[in-house]
Amino acid sequence: MPMQFDPPSGTRDFLAADVEARERAFATIRSVFARYGFEPLQTPAFERLDVLLGKYGEEGDKLIFKILRRGEHEASGEADLALRYDLTVPLARVAAAYGSQLPTPYKRYAIGPVWRADRPGRGRYREFIQCDLDTLGSTSALADAEVICAVHDALAELGLPGFRFLLNSRHVLAGLLEAFGVPADLGPDVLITLDKLDKLAPEEVTAELAGRGLDEAKATELVTAMTAPDAAERIRAALKPSEEGSAGLDELDAMLSLVAGNVPADRVEFTPRLVRGLSYYTGPIWEVVAQGVPGSIAGGGRYDHLIEQLGGPDVPATGGSLGIERILLLLSGDGAGRPSRLDVAVTVMGPDYAQRSFALASAARTAGLRASVYLGSSGKLGRQLKWASDQGARWALIHGGAEQQAGTVTVRDMDSGEQAEVPVPELADYLARAAAAGDTR
Amino acid sequence: MPMQFDPPSGTRDFLAADVEARERAFATIRSVFARYGFEPLQTPAFERLDVLLGKYGEEGDKLIFKILRRGEHEASGEADLALRYDLTVPLARVAAAYGSQLPTPYKRYAIGPVWRADRPGRGRYREFIQCDLDTLGSTSALADAEVICAVHDALAELGLPGFRFLLNSRHVLAGLLEAFGVPADLGPDVLITLDKLDKLAPEEVTAELAGRGLDEAKATELVTAMTAPDAAERIRAALKPSEEGSAGLDELDAMLSLVAGNVPADRVEFTPRLVRGLSYYTGPIWEVVAQGVPGSIAGGGRYDHLIEQLGGPDVPATGGSLGIERILLLLSGDGAGRPSRLDVAVTVMGPDYAQRSFALASAARTAGLRASVYLGSSGKLGRQLKWASDQGARWALIHGGAEQQAGTVTVRDMDSGEQAEVPVPELADYLARAAAAGDTR
Repeated sequence: MPMQFDPPSGTRDFLAADVEARERAFATIRSVFARYGFEPLQTPAFERLDVLLGKYGEEGDKLIFKILRRGEHEASGEADLALRYDLTVPLARVAAAYGSQLPTPYKRYAIGPVWRADRPGRGRYREFIQCDLDTLGSTSALADAEVICAVHDALAELGLPGFRFLLNSRHVLAGLLEAFGVPADLGPDVLITLDKLDKLAPEEVTAELAGRGLDEAKATELVTAMTAPDAAERIRAALKPSEEGSAGLDELDAMLSLVAGNVPADRVEFTPRLVRGLSYYTGPIWEVVAQGVPGSIAGGGRYDHLIEQLGGPDVPATGGSLGIERILLLLSGDGAGRPSRLDVAVTVMGPDYAQRSFALASAARTAGLRASVYLGSSGKLGRQLKWASDQGARWALIHGGAEQQAGTVTVRDMDSGEQAEVPVPELADYLARAAAAGDTR
Repeated sequence: MPMQFDPPSGTRDFLAADVEARERAFATIRSVFARYGFEPLQTPAFERLDVLLGKYGEEGDKLIFKILRRGEHEASGEADLALRYDLTVPLARVAAAYGSQLPTPYKRYAIGPVWRADRPGRGRYREFIQCDLDTLGSTSALADAEVICAVHDALAELGLPGFRFLLNSRHVLAGLLEAFGVPADLGPDVLITLDKLDKLAPEEVTAELAGRGLDEAKATELVTAMTAPDAAERIRAALKPSEEGSAGLDELDAMLSLVAGNVPADRVEFTPRLVRGLSYYTGPIWEVVAQGVPGSIAGGGRYDHLIEQLGGPDVPATGGSLGIERILLLLSGDGAGRPSRLDVAVTVMGPDYAQRSFALASAARTAGLRASVYLGSSGKLGRQLKWASDQGARWALIHGGAEQQAGTVTVRDMDSGEQAEVPVPELADYLARAAAAGDTR
């Protein structure tokens, strides 16, 4: 049987360039979230199986990676642990476990891998990073607005082009059902169907609404209003008579005013058709879409009873999640160019010079530069300079018999090929100055 | 049944202060390793079970967390995946998978969690971070010395006090067995017993050697030489007649000269009794010990055939591992003091002022400061200032009716209680200046 060397299906190895690009993005996000006073939380990769089961619906349960019991119990084939499926259930557990030790409100972010036994596909992985921020313990609309602003700033600092927030509220949706006279028992189904307005043609949605039992004239009226170019205005007018609808509009307008300082007006929009499938939302809801990208790249909202349903305390909550793997795909291609592993590549002109070459690399590091000696077996300068070039080094250092006698080192600029003789004690200063000059070029 | 809220046995939740201390340490280590030209690698949390099984001995196999097959196969109780047990087997797989795409030599570091179903105990976890750096593809002693220097610099930059490198070589140990006339078939057992000289009394080790079949006079002679105050000198003299022993000494002396530029002479020592239990080492071996800490906090050496044994290509290799969880314990306690989640806490004097307060927080963030508005429900200033104090904020911003009229904001220094009236448009500059002044105090 041939040994397979690729990582398990649906997972990825990240070599240096990928790790560095990903870590740079995570660092940007962390720094924005910290500036908003969100603090980090890390929980284990696995949880007790009973903590996870039954929290994600029947389909979700099937996608949980389960871990076999150990030792004598292994033969039973039973599982007692499972890889985490998201970062929200662990948050609920932490809220229950550390209650009074946590600040009130508890504003936390978490960036880490989750695992789902989904069928792997283009852009769909079994191990992928989630990036969540949530505020537990505040009913204030300021908390909702803060999450939106933090997500906006993070996407802007990542350099993502042309993204927009779609904003709505569960109260607006409830008012909408009321205003258009949708029978209460049809409400949830109607919302699920309206959620497809970004994917299906209006007639298809109308037909599906009728199929679900909604009066056809009403269905047409509803879909027409929601897909009109002036949908927001039409829906605003239609909601006036509904108490819950009006309250929802007020909430949205308050939100729009609050975020106006961070989110430019053309980047956020009241979007009546935005439903977000998940039934647990209780107030404002939002998604971020980007030009030319199907689906959303971030989303969230207020979910005041979910933490309790997931096993935590009954606290109000609002939050959001960045689809960071999709965002990383959109950002990739940036920062390409010649890979550089080293600033300074130090040649070794034979065993007698090894110690001095090693010390030269050390001197370059004291100047804050990345430096390494040649670790191969060739004594040829040409071969070693090829290595220096492959490393993307800006300088190669050469130290042989002539330099030894003169007490100098030859510093070769790998771009221009120019060489300078530098007294050994001055090397660190010389390189530091050269690096500073290069950086401001 | 009461719901348990603690994390699974042997794992930990890390709240903000812990996450921050750990991430700071990892960032320090990453930056040192990068300066030596090591590049990062990240592999999945799990591997195919057959990649891991049989690589860690019978005891190791038992400690592997196995993941149940999914879907219709789940009922079989069989596992096909397993959580990674270390970072070396994944490295061997990556070396096999990406061969020619990797630079030669391949110098990589990896910092990430591994999982072992060990009995949890004080300082022993089932999920813990490993921190490895390795050079594949170089037989040069410079590669061994580079690893030692990088580990030294990392420990020094972490601020670890009083640590020392113990240095030895497998060639020295082989020469030692030869010089003291230990029969070849007893060699491995004798080394395993000598490895206990840091834990057991010399007489106990002598007795164990005799029990293993070594001539008692020889055992006494060997243990006496190795535990004498001038052990290094005695062993050096004893090794002279052995060809392998002499070569090992030359290797060690070369190593000591190479690292002398980075590692102070009193921090590295030829230690004849250092064996390191793992049989796969083939050249220099080393450990790092710290004052008052039993066992080692880092270790490594050359292991020229292990990568092949682990399923990779046959490449020479040298590397090391930091016992980062132990090191973090030694460092903890540093950086204690009042936790600070925010630099600027913005009070909200009622719903009418919410929007302005929100904008003030945004202005503070443009000055690079961490800022948040009050998200609670109390309208009382005292209560909100208490919150500001709990957050460890340096300033509280107050904006009520008087400030509204004057177009100002009150900036309260939370340490001194002093207050300043600052025109709103000047707030960001004011805070940036105050923060800069505070940082240089």
